[in-house]
Amino acid sequence: MLNEKDENILWHTHHVSKDERAKIKGQKPCILWFTGLSGSGKSTIANMVESKLHNLNKHTYLLDGDNIRLGLNQGLSFSDADRVENIRRIGEVSKLFVDAGMIVLTAFISPFEEDRNRIREMMQEGEFIEVYVDTPLEVCEERDPKGLYKKARKGEIAEFTGVSSPYEKPQRTEIHIQTENISVASASEKVLEYLEKKGYLRC
Amino acid sequence: MLNEKDENILWHTHHVSKDERAKIKGQKPCILWFTGLSGSGKSTIANMVESKLHNLNKHTYLLDGDNIRLGLNQGLSFSDADRVENIRRIGEVSKLFVDAGMIVLTAFISPFEEDRNRIREMMQEGEFIEVYVDTPLEVCEERDPKGLYKKARKGEIAEFTGVSSPYEKPQRTEIHIQTENISVASASEKVLEYLEKKGYLRC
Repeated sequence: MLNEKDENILWHTHHVSKDERAKIKGQKPCILWFTGLSGSGKSTIANMVESKLHNLNKHTYLLDGDNIRLGLNQGLSFSDADRVENIRRIGEVSKLFVDAGMIVLTAFISPFEEDRNRIREMMQEGEFIEVYVDTPLEVCEERDPKGLYKKARKGEIAEFTGVSSPYEKPQRTEIHIQTENISVASASEKVLEYLEKKGYLRC
Repeated sequence: MLNEKDENILWHTHHVSKDERAKIKGQKPCILWFTGLSGSGKSTIANMVESKLHNLNKHTYLLDGDNIRLGLNQGLSFSDADRVENIRRIGEVSKLFVDAGMIVLTAFISPFEEDRNRIREMMQEGEFIEVYVDTPLEVCEERDPKGLYKKARKGEIAEFTGVSSPYEKPQRTEIHIQTENISVASASEKVLEYLEKKGYLRC
């Protein structure tokens, strides 16, 4: 018979805690929530931040359209309700990763202050770090890496952020990156400096 | 201007890979998918396995009703469609954790072979380890830790697995734990031995 009170073990009811999971990783878990227009450089900077953290033996994970849209969030449309649900699920998954002791990076436009704040409020103090990748619309539009702005201007994409749907600038961002005049390397260094200074990179 | 071709860095397009994330953890990532009746001991065994792995400095995360039902999967009912969606999302999140290099443990009844196999097929060879916690219905029902069987017998819970909804015994389980006559400690040791033998606990 399954016996939970086996005399050989005293810790049978012990659940591994968030602190314990973080401790073997030598870091304080958090979400680096990158927000900004399409083409602002969110993913590029987030990827470089992840690489730099990995080189410091930090335990990271990056959530972006590539691993979310075709997996967990497949089937969600771009309707208002589904956009809210999209961001909600990303927030919930990020919370699980933080509980697992990880530094999780997310790179989504996430244009609405209310949605971002809802995730901030789900987390404990200091666990939600909003990184505003602030690139002027005209720069993003000129760059237009996926040709999406062109399509949006032609009316081929409805409710495209910055064109036919608003981007609400973050009001209480922890890290504000104005990408004009700085390189991706400098932008990511700024994030690293914040993490270092605030003690996220040690237990 | 944001410059992706900064001459100071050659690795700007580098994405941290699954292998790299696993390597700093000293393990091969996988899902330990615990399946079995309500009251079979899935969560208890999974918790002890997680504790033992953590004591070996392995990087783990446990998904169960406590952290999933009230978070990511809130709003899902117990209808057939929502049950499928429930397990689908758990599979997708587990896949993200495996991509992050973790050993993820899940403890859900997951009664349908088709649902379990769908997740197996999403994963790479060897990443999905089905752990069948095989406790006879009469034992689970006698134990009835949450009083759910009693309610189900009275008809107060519809479609309760083992009472009014089937449990499909796993056909291709990697680890089969018959819980009668063994302790939780022995059951969890069996899982650890499998992981050790198959090389999951080293790179």
